[in-house]
This record gives sequence, C-alpha cells and structure tokens, in this order.
Amino acid sequence: MAEPFVHRMRVRYAECDAQGVLFNAHYLAYIDHSITEMWRAAYGGYDRMLQRGVDVVVAEAQLQFLEGARFDQEIDAEMLVTHLGTTSMRSHHRMVRVQDSAPLMEADMRHVWIDRETQRKTPIPDWARAGVEPWHAPEQ
Amino acid sequence: MAEPFVHRMRVRYAECDAQGVLFNAHYLAYIDHSITEMWRAAYGGYDRMLQRGVDVVVAEAQLQFLEGARFDQEIDAEMLVTHLGTTSMRSHHRMVRVQDSAPLMEADMRHVWIDRETQRKTPIPDWARAGVEPWHAPEQ
Amino acid sequence: MAEPFVHRMRVRYAECDAQGVLFNAHYLAYIDHSITEMWRAAYGGYDRMLQRGVDVVVAEAQLQFLEGARFDQEIDAEMLVTHLGTTSMRSHHRMVRVQDSAPLMEADMRHVWIDRETQRKTPIPDWARAGVEPWHAPEQ
Amino acid sequence: MAEPFVHRMRVRYAECDAQGVLFNAHYLAYIDHSITEMWRAAYGGYDRMLQRGVDVVVAEAQLQFLEGARFDQEIDAEMLVTHLGTTSMRSHHRMVRVQDSAPLMEADMRHVWIDRETQRKTPIPDWARAGVEPWHAPEQ
Repeated sequence: MAEPFVHRMRVRYAECDAQGVLFNAHYLAYIDHSITEMWRAAYGGYDRMLQRGVDVVVAEAQLQFLEGARFDQEIDAEMLVTHLGTTSMRSHHRMVRVQDSAPLMEADMRHVWIDRETQRKTPIPDWARAGVEPWHAPEQ
Repeated sequence: MAEPFVHRMRVRYAECDAQGVLFNAHYLAYIDHSITEMWRAAYGGYDRMLQRGVDVVVAEAQLQFLEGARFDQEIDAEMLVTHLGTTSMRSHHRMVRVQDSAPLMEADMRHVWIDRETQRKTPIPDWARAGVEPWHAPEQ
Repeated sequence: MAEPFVHRMRVRYAECDAQGVLFNAHYLAYIDHSITEMWRAAYGGYDRMLQRGVDVVVAEAQLQFLEGARFDQEIDAEMLVTHLGTTSMRSHHRMVRVQDSAPLMEADMRHVWIDRETQRKTPIPDWARAGVEPWHAPEQ
Repeated sequence: MAEPFVHRMRVRYAECDAQGVLFNAHYLAYIDHSITEMWRAAYGGYDRMLQRGVDVVVAEAQLQFLEGARFDQEIDAEMLVTHLGTTSMRSHHRMVRVQDSAPLMEADMRHVWIDRETQRKTPIPDWARAGVEPWHAPEQ
C-alpha cells in the first residue's frame, strides 16, 4: 500500500481572511503547491514536463472543508494518486493540521495531460506514469 | 423559473498564472465575490448578516474547469440557489466569458449558516430565506 | 492642469487579512489594476502594447499607508502621470475611500518600457506618450 | 556588525503572472512572510505580540525591482532592522535568488507599533526591542 506524498506548509498572514482563517480558495492553491513538490520528487520539477513537451491542467476539483486553519499553523498536505487513466490522473488530498492532527480538508482532483504545442489531451507518457508510481494507490 | 444572479468581473493580471490563464484557485475566489454581491442584493450586504448574529462558511465545493480565461477578459458569474435546507444552502455556479458566451467553469457549492458567537450550525433565519428567494430554483 | 484617471474597486473578502483590513501587498496590486484600466482608456488595452512590440515593467514603488480599508468598502484609485522620460514613466497614485473621501494610501511608481523581444529598455513610443497625455501632470 | 535574518521561500506557480515572473505585489507579501519568521525567532511568534497587547502595522514601503524571479526558483529574503525609534521600526530587505545570488529586489520598510485596544501608536516595548536586537544594524 502506497504512502501519501506529504508537503508541509505554514499558513501565511495574507492568506487568512477577515474570519481569521485560511480563505477557502487558498486550499486549491495549497493543493497546487503540494503537486508542484510531487512533480519535483517524481521528475525533478514541473519544468521537466514542459521540456518534454507536455503540460498538465486541472479538469475537476471536489473539496470538503472540515475545519478552519489559523495563521501560522502548520499544515501537512497529503496526496495519493488514485487513478491513472489514458490521459487523466485522479488524486486524493488531505490537509492535516500538524499540531493536533486535525483533518481540515479532503479533496479529489482530476488533472489532464495535454500536448504543450496543441494544448490538446495527450496520453500520459510512460516516464510520467513511472514517476508518480511511488504514491499510486489505485482505488478499488 | 428563477433567473440566475449575475455578477460581472474582469480577469486581473495578477490572477493569471504562467500558463497565461486565470489560476484555478481564483475561480473559488470569484464564486465568493459573486456571492458577496448576491448578499448585497438580498440583504444589503454581508455585514448585515453579521449584525444579525449569523455567519456563513463554505462546507463543500465541486468545480469543473472547461476552458481557460485570459487576462482582461470579462466573465459573468451566474448563480442559482438550488437547495435551502435547515442549516445549509446549495448553489450552482457558472462562469461564462462575455465576449463569446463560452462556458469556462461550472460549480456546486454548499454553505452552512453558523451562529456567530458559538460558531456552530444554526437554522437559516426566515429573513435569510426570503432574501435569496429571487434566485432560488430548487432542483427537481 | 490634468485631472487624475480614476478607477473604482471594491475591497474583496479574500483580500482582507486577519486584522480585518485590505492586506498591504494588495495596494500594489490595486495600483496595477488601475494602470490596466488606464491602458484601456489610453490605447484600447494592455494587449495593444504587446501587439506593438513593447511591454512595461515596474522598476520602483514607494507607498505610504495612511488608513486601513475594510471589506466591501469602495475605493477610488486615482492616478496621474508625473514624468515621461526617455524610457521610463513616473506616476502618482492615491487610494481614497469613497464613502468618506478618506485618503488610504499614496504612492509613487516608476515603470520602464521594454522591447518585448529583447526584454531591454526601449524608448517610449510616440503613440504611447500621446495615449497617456490626458492624465499627464508633470511635477514642477 | 549584525548579520541579516534570512528566510528562504520558493516561488509558487500561482504567484507568477502572465509575464512568467513573480508578480510585483507578491514581493511585499514575501517581506511580510519573512518578518513573520523574524517575529518567531525574536518572540516565539506574532501571536505573542498580540497576547502582550501590541500589534504592528506597515506605514511605508519603498521597493526597487531589479530582476524577475521565475516559478520554482528559491529566494532568500534577507532583513536587517536599521532603526528603532520610539514607536516605529525601519528595516532593510533584500531578495536574492539562491541559485546564482542575483539580487532581485531591495526594499526599505517602516512599521509602527500600535496598542491593540486603541489602535493608536504606542512605544515599542523593551522586550520587543530586545527581541530584534540580533538583527539590528543601525544606519550611520
């Protein structure tokens, strides 16, 4: 069973809204930041994907907000690749507050590989499949 | 049949990412901006809700990304209230590019009313139900 | 005496920080939004500048923060071009709260014209000088 | 001679604009992030300041932009406290790209201590002066 990829972030002051908690849209940005770090671990960085002629776009996002995160709190963004289709990748994400392990958010994302030139869907290359394999836990 | 509430926005330079399109997390912010305008039309503004002792938090978001929006393009954020439960409101959102009516994103949101003091779920007050009625189109 | 170019914006929820006021960095973004609107009034939009082979980058910014702006307040961003040099433009900016005319921020900016290909400084084209002339009030 | 306080950050995708570089307003946010880390090193965190009844607001910012930072590049935000007045603190900031030591931005900031209750200027407490002393390099 694969272990999730984990990236730790600290909630920035500018990311908190007038309710004093991390503004909801920033969770989607945090997911992006954690995927960036997974690309680094998998391929040496997102730029390597571009250099090889492919890019990735977000097609779908489902988010459940469980509890607010406050300024200066540390969050572990956990990520598992749950499905690798022909052209699309599904992933499951959890944000967990470090100090008390409280789950703050769960999300499911679908990304699509595109050809960088044509901007059209393209099959996920073999090197790209292999790169994310360490965090690949197919749903049953 | 209720007509959607519509709020027009223009894509800002700082909101576009290195792919040259509106960064995905900003769609969630755009939804928030459009709801802010609906509160204004419904109640005279979000502050009126706070003054009456209630607040609203996002519980769930489902987003489908259809096409990228570029800098300086105008977007109509359309919104319909699809369900008013005891404590929660569901809404459906569409972002449409003004120049060619291209749909850019569809989303379903669930918000929960909370008591401002206790921060716990509270029934949606009658005035709050009445306020959003013009854009209430229950799903069948 | 030239009148300032004015662009009205409303403070968004996501732009307010945990102090409940517009986060300081967003003033720099607001200046950018207002300049975007001046480009539109002057040239038909920033894209026209790119199409003509030039781009503009920020070289310097000086900001004085006078009073906080709260969520949902409207702000008039005023702008005057104070100097047009060979390759650089200086401008003066004021943010004024609409409801009580309170000054919130004053700023001086220096932008530099660059050749889009080489990314190096380039003289401000004549059409670019002419376009901003309506808001040109040289400092004495 | 005091050494600067240094906080390392990596440029996030969402922070880059359509020019492909870190958007100018984010430098002001980066300065804020680095000061947050200095508060942590000095006092155990910004919250400690709030608990002791004081808060800090930005009064002035002067920024010089030297070179663009690209996505995924690491930046060292360096900071020195250059002046501790009765109620205000001046600081000098440099952003340096880690990979080639290229200076990207220089800035001077002025922050003012305020009483958290009254929101008015208040003398910098002795514990606050002592806390930042390790990075205090008064200008001559």
